[in-house]
Amino acid sequence: MTKIVVIGAVAAGTTAATKARRNDPEAEITIYDRDIDISYAICGIPYAVGHEVANFDQLTPRDPQWFKQNYQIDLKTRHEILAIDSNKQTLQVKALDTGAVFTDHYDLLLLATGARYGIPTAFKDIDADNLFHVRNVQSGRELASYLALHSIKTAAVVGAGYVGLEMTEQLTKLGIQVQIFQRSAHILGNFDGDMAEIAETYARQKGISLALAETVTKTQVQNGHIIGLDTNQGQHYQPDIVILAAGVKPNTRLAESIGVKLGTTGAIAVNDRFQTNLPNVYAVGDVAESFSVIDGRPLWKPLATTANKMGRIAGDAMTGGSLRHRGILGTSILRFFDLTIAQTGYTEKEAQAAGYDFLVLKDKKTNVPDYMPKSQTMTLKTLADKKTHRILGAQIIGGAGVDKRIDVLATAMTFKAKAEDLFHLDLAYSPAFDTTKDAVLYTGMILTDQLASETKGV
Amino acid sequence: MTKIVVIGAVAAGTTAATKARRNDPEAEITIYDRDIDISYAICGIPYAVGHEVANFDQLTPRDPQWFKQNYQIDLKTRHEILAIDSNKQTLQVKALDTGAVFTDHYDLLLLATGARYGIPTAFKDIDADNLFHVRNVQSGRELASYLALHSIKTAAVVGAGYVGLEMTEQLTKLGIQVQIFQRSAHILGNFDGDMAEIAETYARQKGISLALAETVTKTQVQNGHIIGLDTNQGQHYQPDIVILAAGVKPNTRLAESIGVKLGTTGAIAVNDRFQTNLPNVYAVGDVAESFSVIDGRPLWKPLATTANKMGRIAGDAMTGGSLRHRGILGTSILRFFDLTIAQTGYTEKEAQAAGYDFLVLKDKKTNVPDYMPKSQTMTLKTLADKKTHRILGAQIIGGAGVDKRIDVLATAMTFKAKAEDLFHLDLAYSPAFDTTKDAVLYTGMILTDQLASETKGV
Repeated sequence: MTKIVVIGAVAAGTTAATKARRNDPEAEITIYDRDIDISYAICGIPYAVGHEVANFDQLTPRDPQWFKQNYQIDLKTRHEILAIDSNKQTLQVKALDTGAVFTDHYDLLLLATGARYGIPTAFKDIDADNLFHVRNVQSGRELASYLALHSIKTAAVVGAGYVGLEMTEQLTKLGIQVQIFQRSAHILGNFDGDMAEIAETYARQKGISLALAETVTKTQVQNGHIIGLDTNQGQHYQPDIVILAAGVKPNTRLAESIGVKLGTTGAIAVNDRFQTNLPNVYAVGDVAESFSVIDGRPLWKPLATTANKMGRIAGDAMTGGSLRHRGILGTSILRFFDLTIAQTGYTEKEAQAAGYDFLVLKDKKTNVPDYMPKSQTMTLKTLADKKTHRILGAQIIGGAGVDKRIDVLATAMTFKAKAEDLFHLDLAYSPAFDTTKDAVLYTGMILTDQLASETKGV
Repeated sequence: MTKIVVIGAVAAGTTAATKARRNDPEAEITIYDRDIDISYAICGIPYAVGHEVANFDQLTPRDPQWFKQNYQIDLKTRHEILAIDSNKQTLQVKALDTGAVFTDHYDLLLLATGARYGIPTAFKDIDADNLFHVRNVQSGRELASYLALHSIKTAAVVGAGYVGLEMTEQLTKLGIQVQIFQRSAHILGNFDGDMAEIAETYARQKGISLALAETVTKTQVQNGHIIGLDTNQGQHYQPDIVILAAGVKPNTRLAESIGVKLGTTGAIAVNDRFQTNLPNVYAVGDVAESFSVIDGRPLWKPLATTANKMGRIAGDAMTGGSLRHRGILGTSILRFFDLTIAQTGYTEKEAQAAGYDFLVLKDKKTNVPDYMPKSQTMTLKTLADKKTHRILGAQIIGGAGVDKRIDVLATAMTFKAKAEDLFHLDLAYSPAFDTTKDAVLYTGMILTDQLASETKGV
């Protein structure tokens, strides 16, 4: 009987464990997690803070009993792994609530230790009642409680990636004036600057203040309360609360302690069955590296979709299944008020860094015909490789229907679509849902013409 | 200098002509059409009748002057082709407004004569002021005028395909009680009965009366006004107005008159460059046959998307381009109040008729997580070939996001997706737009498991 131990019980770890159980009714499966909340919908936290989701409990529908009853999995929360001996295949585990330390062993170990949250220098070691993170359900609850008990008028959000902007949206809807601090010149680091500018203009129209290329250099704390922020632009701010959303990094401490090798992205290097360099040690989720569907290049994208995919494949691989990872595009999406912001594959800056010679098409199309009352414009930026004509990436910002176009492009790209393939897609048309020629088809037509001109040297 | 003559100026004909012009600045291009309105958005007609589109003029944004100025195309409306001599390559044309008849010649002829509208036997030769068609902009205008001038309380809609249901939706929203007559046992002929039933239940909840497997056998007319309908079920109805939406057939009369061969579907047989059996004679749009992306089988799907695709490819082919038709899936979609109804590829009955040995999966999934307030359920019915594991078809009925899933499936199917490919798609997730594992991924996972069980003989 195989003994499988999983470290980490959010998305990837629990998915791997349940897949392993479905494949192998006999295996002994244990999951350890330091946290209280497990298997939670981390992406739902901003919406619970803003009351769009009724309460935080809805984000944690499953508890250890559920895993025991449905999958015969022992899920132990508030248990920290102190050390691993990869030769003896043992773990030293501490039950945080009792302080008891015990030893467990594994035949197969799965590291799903997730990501750790970046804390900007000016906030290191700061403990203040009005300083918040968005790292797990508990941190969301703390913020929501504070908002309920205090009359908050202004908030500083540090970091303008997806989580920062989702929190900004929700706080704004609660009537709070948000000031964003972004270290780089543009918000939305996984977009090109020209596309991010569309969202920046929109954010300002919504009354949100953007401090771009501006970092907090000093945090003034009085009686455990932040009373002011100084920045590298010589500015001084006095927000009622501060929310840190400054990005994440793979939480590789435990892995590194036993000699698990990291890849070029800084996450754990794995093969397409999520095996690490150590025998019987696997890694999945935000702590593990992935690779690009486009060219196999290592990628690290801490996304729930990727974590789930990894978990299922690893759970299968650990129990004799044949699933193999085929890579990712890093497809992602953000709702920002009425704006939808989405991307897949490489951005222009990423494609440049990867050494591609490519065409860029930026065009504007409507989601449905102009004559329909709900017609909205979207801006599409699409990259095609001059050599292979393959679509390398797309960024779309607009209203309704952006999610559909990014998913159509992501699907096509998974099948290695060339620019000239897009026109041939047979998509669903009615004036209520699309234009006769969908924006993706137009994009393919124009890119095809431009690639032909390139070949002719026009 | 090539002389290109196009017969028909709605979707396919005008698309072909403009593509031909872009490829060949020298060609002489003439389009003839019997109608007054040209290049119109035929699918928008129900929405203009129901005032969702402000007025009918928005559906006819282009006139002959536009084609002359922008494309140097001579577009002659109200011109009927009386005869074609395919040996001499001449046409006999009648200018309907003056009665003048003249001869034109062509180097290349494109037949884009569209579809003709089916008239059920009981309505043959009936001329009544309260009997309407939905065949072109003019027929839409006539219905709208009548509705504006009379207090209409009840309507009979004959035929419950997309057009019939779109009209039903709009009339219901105008406060008119609609009675649908459908000859077959279910509405939505391009869906399987079990899926159509979902829409039938919904229609009845909206207060719409469905007379299924019921045909009008006698139309009672008094003073040019329909006063009653008798049916084969022995029922008698007295609707204020009657709308015929009983389907269409390829309008092949002119083609047949010169010996153009038809395919097995009854539409004009063409190759992948839309050439007919006659030299220099091409055919596109609703009058021409297409073929399935899945297996090359001839298909006739009178859809605007297909017509546009055909037009572009034919316009390219007629002017020395290299575009070739890659086939269609017949992907289509209908908004019916808050319900979205969509399909792509083969239905169960079609797959059976085509001799496939396949699995059918019917499942229910939400568009976004349960915890999001706008979460809605959709029912998916998906077919996978037992031999090749390829996805053969899908039907989806539900709320928001159905259009996205059908387009993702259609895109995957265009690239010959197998069931096991779907799980690997990297789609855009955020709780505002999707579940962590999209319904399409789930569908792929379950079908993969079921196909594996089949192989094992479980």
